[in-house]
Amino acid sequence: MNEQSALPGWVHGPARSAVLEFIRSVTTPGDSFVPASARIATFDNDGTLWCEKPLYVQADFLVRRFVAMVKEDPRRAQEQPYKAVVEGDREWLKDIYAHVPELLRGVTEAYEGITVEAFEAAVSDFFESARHPTLGVPYTEVTYRPMRELMALLTANDFKVYVCSAGGRDFVRAVCERVYDLPRDRVIGSATTLEYRDGHLYRTAGVEQPIDDGPGKPVHIWTRTGRKPLLAGGNADGDVAMLEAARFALLVHHDDAEREFAYDEGAEKALAAAQAQGWTVVSMKKDFKTVF
Amino acid sequence: MNEQSALPGWVHGPARSAVLEFIRSVTTPGDSFVPASARIATFDNDGTLWCEKPLYVQADFLVRRFVAMVKEDPRRAQEQPYKAVVEGDREWLKDIYAHVPELLRGVTEAYEGITVEAFEAAVSDFFESARHPTLGVPYTEVTYRPMRELMALLTANDFKVYVCSAGGRDFVRAVCERVYDLPRDRVIGSATTLEYRDGHLYRTAGVEQPIDDGPGKPVHIWTRTGRKPLLAGGNADGDVAMLEAARFALLVHHDDAEREFAYDEGAEKALAAAQAQGWTVVSMKKDFKTVF
Repeated sequence: MNEQSALPGWVHGPARSAVLEFIRSVTTPGDSFVPASARIATFDNDGTLWCEKPLYVQADFLVRRFVAMVKEDPRRAQEQPYKAVVEGDREWLKDIYAHVPELLRGVTEAYEGITVEAFEAAVSDFFESARHPTLGVPYTEVTYRPMRELMALLTANDFKVYVCSAGGRDFVRAVCERVYDLPRDRVIGSATTLEYRDGHLYRTAGVEQPIDDGPGKPVHIWTRTGRKPLLAGGNADGDVAMLEAARFALLVHHDDAEREFAYDEGAEKALAAAQAQGWTVVSMKKDFKTVF
Repeated sequence: MNEQSALPGWVHGPARSAVLEFIRSVTTPGDSFVPASARIATFDNDGTLWCEKPLYVQADFLVRRFVAMVKEDPRRAQEQPYKAVVEGDREWLKDIYAHVPELLRGVTEAYEGITVEAFEAAVSDFFESARHPTLGVPYTEVTYRPMRELMALLTANDFKVYVCSAGGRDFVRAVCERVYDLPRDRVIGSATTLEYRDGHLYRTAGVEQPIDDGPGKPVHIWTRTGRKPLLAGGNADGDVAMLEAARFALLVHHDDAEREFAYDEGAEKALAAAQAQGWTVVSMKKDFKTVF
């Protein structure tokens, strides 16, 4: 690793130095050395690897589907979450934690009963046509370049890099090779239940438990890798358990209203934990030379 | 791949030829070529990669624990599955499918509430001390050498090789590096539920659904890899769905009473499906030069 030229999208400052020093320490023979088999890096997706404002990418995908579902069956316009979507009820939609059961029902109903391949085709269609509402580019272009550089650097140092999303596992898999240069088996995430029948895998009405958020993240990571993360990156309160379980924790702070978005909502606990536990906080404004 | 010297533990015959021809076909440019990213191979464990008779390796592990649990609390001797174990009630223990709820209760109770690390230490202790009851060697030495050669050959041809066990995922992970030369993230299997608390992962009383058997196998494989298997190997009825989901299916037939065990019980449907669907049946007697 050439420490001068590594991570070219990062400003030479304390965050970049802490990351490089950690990678050096676990890959160099000595007390802190970690064998390659235990080098697991896990990154939250929304807000850590790609832009999550003004709405989650997957929320845009689902809203479009909900609108189509109401067209197919107008009676749905009287039921949540479809009602809020067709009426543009931002208040209802904003408070997602107050409406988890209705939203999960919508999420599972939206693509219930179709094969995993048909679902992937729907996701691919979305990424072909949809544009980020304020940046005006395809969603495949709203990943953070410095984070992609970090994932590549970790891979070059024999880490196994995973995306670990509270959002849909199979949603991210449809684009992980293209946007993150990661194979499909490196995506961990929440999922609807599946059923195998006559050679096909169908999406069913349940949600796999636990979802891949909060304390569910270290559970998913163990389930998939048989390890706790050596390095983890997140940006929000739902990432605290994963960050706390990791040897090196990195918290992306959204403080760049000009180039991206500035917000601490939903990250208050994570920012406090970073302070208390000495995690590396990455200021998008000060530490990222380029964002996208 | 040198087709003459490949798979030295296999007799030069139709099974070996079919396997080599399949590997050649998917790795050679042309109509049947499959890119490395989609080369997923999955193998059942008990009876496919290691010996499952006269009892499952993990059953031996659990029986020892059940005996210890009855010593700790003698009242358990009145309840199943502990009663059957301490009384040596072979009839009860033999018919595992009739006693799934009691057995699952025992399986989850046996190590409930301990950390994943403490569980792994218990498994490692077992493998240190236990011996196969008829072969007289440690259980780490009852894997099938021809199957290990096949896994290594697939790895050398850029397949990602997974163990896909109806038995315990974290049980197999304790020895996968040593016995199969596979990293821990390549083990798929059934599992108790886990809970993350204060930096630790604890085993809890539930069983992750679905279990990794029958139609649960392709579900687990998709969950973990985002793919259906390209090549799959099994030996029993619980493997039929996985084999049917694969492009190339291999069924290990236990027909060698002299060097291993001869039995078709529990594999009747698999043998019939192999016949009907043209799967490659591997006769341990005729196709394996050496077994262990």
